[in-house]
Amino acid sequence: MRCCALMRSEGTSPRVYLAGPDVFLPEPLVRAVRLKEICHRYGLVGVFPLDPVDGPWGGLPEAHRIALGNEAHIRSCDALIANLTPFRGPSADVGTVFEVGFMRALGRPVFGWSNTATLFTDRTVAFVAGNDQRITRDAQGMRDADGMQIEDFALGDNLMIDVAVLQSGGALTRETVPPDRQWSDLGAFDRCVAEAARRLAQMG
Amino acid sequence: MRCCALMRSEGTSPRVYLAGPDVFLPEPLVRAVRLKEICHRYGLVGVFPLDPVDGPWGGLPEAHRIALGNEAHIRSCDALIANLTPFRGPSADVGTVFEVGFMRALGRPVFGWSNTATLFTDRTVAFVAGNDQRITRDAQGMRDADGMQIEDFALGDNLMIDVAVLQSGGALTRETVPPDRQWSDLGAFDRCVAEAARRLAQMG
Repeated sequence: MRCCALMRSEGTSPRVYLAGPDVFLPEPLVRAVRLKEICHRYGLVGVFPLDPVDGPWGGLPEAHRIALGNEAHIRSCDALIANLTPFRGPSADVGTVFEVGFMRALGRPVFGWSNTATLFTDRTVAFVAGNDQRITRDAQGMRDADGMQIEDFALGDNLMIDVAVLQSGGALTRETVPPDRQWSDLGAFDRCVAEAARRLAQMG
Repeated sequence: MRCCALMRSEGTSPRVYLAGPDVFLPEPLVRAVRLKEICHRYGLVGVFPLDPVDGPWGGLPEAHRIALGNEAHIRSCDALIANLTPFRGPSADVGTVFEVGFMRALGRPVFGWSNTATLFTDRTVAFVAGNDQRITRDAQGMRDADGMQIEDFALGDNLMIDVAVLQSGGALTRETVPPDRQWSDLGAFDRCVAEAARRLAQMG
């Protein structure tokens, strides 16, 4: 386990930033309460992107206030837990992935959970085929109709994401749920938080 | 312009990391040469993800060696130039976006270019409609069939990406090219590099 620049003082609960497309749900604040309850049960303080945060961006456009607020939230946290459930394509939500990269560069642990256990390569092949594109093969592996290679490392998403989580001291929890529970089921999240609490206590 | 923790010594050319799905092209090393030639013309040293890099990851699996090598490359650079052309969905390639977030957290300038100028919201609506999903509207705006909100800030991609670039002291260059030149046209890249060179010289 490397790079655990935790910021908390002894005895306080670790703060974890809850990255994910959950902010796009019809009732994101209801979701925030549920996620935070689960964190609390494991001794962690969950920080939701929409939580209020002060900063010198009051006069900026809304998109800037949101983005700078999220960056400030991440900097204030000891770890990050990302909802990596695929979002409008074969990969996780890009806003979430940006935040995974951001926390990784800060050297603190990143955890990931997803409501599908299907491998990234299989999801990409299904996505490409679903767009009526023929997949071709060459010495490097599979390619889509644009000739762009299909990554094949038996991972859950693009290698930058999975490796960052594993190398940060974090862990990945991916479990397939029925399609109609893709954005509501919190079983994988619960187990991810439990593992995060266990590891953060060890790093403590 | 904020956060310009440039690392270079006086008089040396700025090093820029060339993030993008260009690594998935049929001949990524040919692409690397072209991108580096353009950088060189503007006085920048382009660093391609596949460039060799030493590190203590020799015994790790290939995906880990690639990811840790890319992270080391980014840390060694003064700025990052990202190919944000949409990749298998409405957004940029997630590996690229991870790297944008990573460099943003390091506090160095991030630049972005794309071969489409279509707004993110319009691309997302087209993606959702192309998947035979009905778009609904409520007080918060548009939603897909899962009830997930469609971001609408008149930006080129998810707000975390665009705002990070703009707040880092970087700039965005997005220009629409014909579909068959999506992965070959380097006009927007050329103009992005020119702007990066100009700004990096000012920050110098």
